[in-house]
Amino acid sequence: MRYLTPTLSDLEKAAERIAPFAEITPILTCSAISEMVGAELFFKCENFQKVGAFKFRGACNAVFSLTDDEAAKGVATHSSGNHAAALSLAGKLRGIPVYIVMPSNAPEIKKRAVKGYGGRITYCEPTLSARESTLKIVIEKTHAFEIHPFNDEQIIAGQGTATLELLNTIPDLDVIIAPIGGGGLISGTCIAAKGINPNITIMGAEPKGADDAYLSLAKGEIVPQTNPNTIADGLLSSLGKKTFPIIAEHVSKILTVSEKNIIRAMRLVWERLNIIIEPSSAVVLAALLEHPEENKEKKVGLIFSGGNTDLDHLYW
Amino acid sequence: MRYLTPTLSDLEKAAERIAPFAEITPILTCSAISEMVGAELFFKCENFQKVGAFKFRGACNAVFSLTDDEAAKGVATHSSGNHAAALSLAGKLRGIPVYIVMPSNAPEIKKRAVKGYGGRITYCEPTLSARESTLKIVIEKTHAFEIHPFNDEQIIAGQGTATLELLNTIPDLDVIIAPIGGGGLISGTCIAAKGINPNITIMGAEPKGADDAYLSLAKGEIVPQTNPNTIADGLLSSLGKKTFPIIAEHVSKILTVSEKNIIRAMRLVWERLNIIIEPSSAVVLAALLEHPEENKEKKVGLIFSGGNTDLDHLYW
Repeated sequence: MRYLTPTLSDLEKAAERIAPFAEITPILTCSAISEMVGAELFFKCENFQKVGAFKFRGACNAVFSLTDDEAAKGVATHSSGNHAAALSLAGKLRGIPVYIVMPSNAPEIKKRAVKGYGGRITYCEPTLSARESTLKIVIEKTHAFEIHPFNDEQIIAGQGTATLELLNTIPDLDVIIAPIGGGGLISGTCIAAKGINPNITIMGAEPKGADDAYLSLAKGEIVPQTNPNTIADGLLSSLGKKTFPIIAEHVSKILTVSEKNIIRAMRLVWERLNIIIEPSSAVVLAALLEHPEENKEKKVGLIFSGGNTDLDHLYW
Repeated sequence: MRYLTPTLSDLEKAAERIAPFAEITPILTCSAISEMVGAELFFKCENFQKVGAFKFRGACNAVFSLTDDEAAKGVATHSSGNHAAALSLAGKLRGIPVYIVMPSNAPEIKKRAVKGYGGRITYCEPTLSARESTLKIVIEKTHAFEIHPFNDEQIIAGQGTATLELLNTIPDLDVIIAPIGGGGLISGTCIAAKGINPNITIMGAEPKGADDAYLSLAKGEIVPQTNPNTIADGLLSSLGKKTFPIIAEHVSKILTVSEKNIIRAMRLVWERLNIIIEPSSAVVLAALLEHPEENKEKKVGLIFSGGNTDLDHLYW
């Protein structure tokens, strides 16, 4: 089976589609951090996106791409993270029901976010198979349309709109670095950036404790993520069948980072930029701290995935 | 002795003077927080100002207002806080030496900030009289020009530029609330706002544990601050002879707030806006949480003073 890869034109349509609902997020700079890593950095701040994460772009694009018939019975997904909140808000904006399958041990704050946007939660055991089988039951009962968190063309196209905005403002970037979880964000990043400038370099950033994308790229096929161990809780998924080929074609290199550098990068950003980013965002700056030989004196765009983190707990 | 009060035209000159150096800071909104307090809120984010605080506006204006002769021997002040860092950076930008008298027990992070901008520190005992007498000695030795943190027309004019920006973007605000320490920020706020719209209401926000401005306004004369007890460490000063009359003339009301509400407001902003503000910023939102009867359904501008807070310690 051959999957259709979204094109730059799909991303441009996505940008138009989500424009009434999504934020055009700010791009920040910080001379102190740029000097520290010896490159000129531009931070694309998806922590200021609706629901506090880039996930809203994809969810919004996917929900508003549906025909009225497809949308009539609502949408459904399984997620314990930002995609659940993003889909709930997108569905609310379209006026359709949203069904979320969530592991019973999901953090209280995530449950509250989903409920706050009107998402209807079905709890299940905290295993992938329980999530999948429960979602199947929910969909059989409701006839809702499934929207996968990353293995979906409209999701990928939506996530890519962050990079359209970034290159619209800073067109002469040499490199863009994005975090890799399931690969939706970096796939959209690739299509946007390579579509606009085929000479741009795309790198991924991944925790050493969840380095399945690094291993997958090395092996030339999807290596599933097993027992991930990292504070970057948005980057625990395996790559998908629709994201892996895009990453394999366009991503030059995946930089893996230690937990220590994720924490160091996170603190640097909180302290110097006065903004709150989640650990999954911090990996992109950690990549430059840990691999200072890469990207010296380059103009580098870094995509901060979001800002949803537990404020009762500091990692440092 | 009669002091000259800065006028709107002085503020406009200040804005031009600092434009090459200072940030035009963003104005953020948050529908969840606005709904919570029943008013439409606009947050003027001086935590994104240079050195992370509004203090840079005043310091920059004061330093660049000096004649070459006045500036030749440098500038000096006593401060353990944001004014010290702000003056150090402003002096560095003008290329003149900056002498800072600081209590020996000042936080390490403040000392580092001043040194990072090239400020020359003289340590003294942590009392006001030691600070004043040490500053006198430093000035006698260096012939530097003293720049007081708030009791100074050019400082007041500089701080007022934040409100010029705020009203330039949101001209139809009903109310502006600013925190009160020595009164420099709120004095500049009054001159800007009343100069542009005489019908606008200005309120101050102050911790109950440092309510000297509240008492001063009630008594009609400066009541010195004694033994302040609050986490809002930027709001510990008494009012000055140049700030009190401006406040007495233009400020309708001072809303005092509990430490509990300062912490609650600070957490709300970190969580909902994904930005880092210091406790002294949070008092303005705390004022609306604690006095919900005030400003219902109004358009309210809130000035966040800065974002310099100890990231090793959470108040909640």
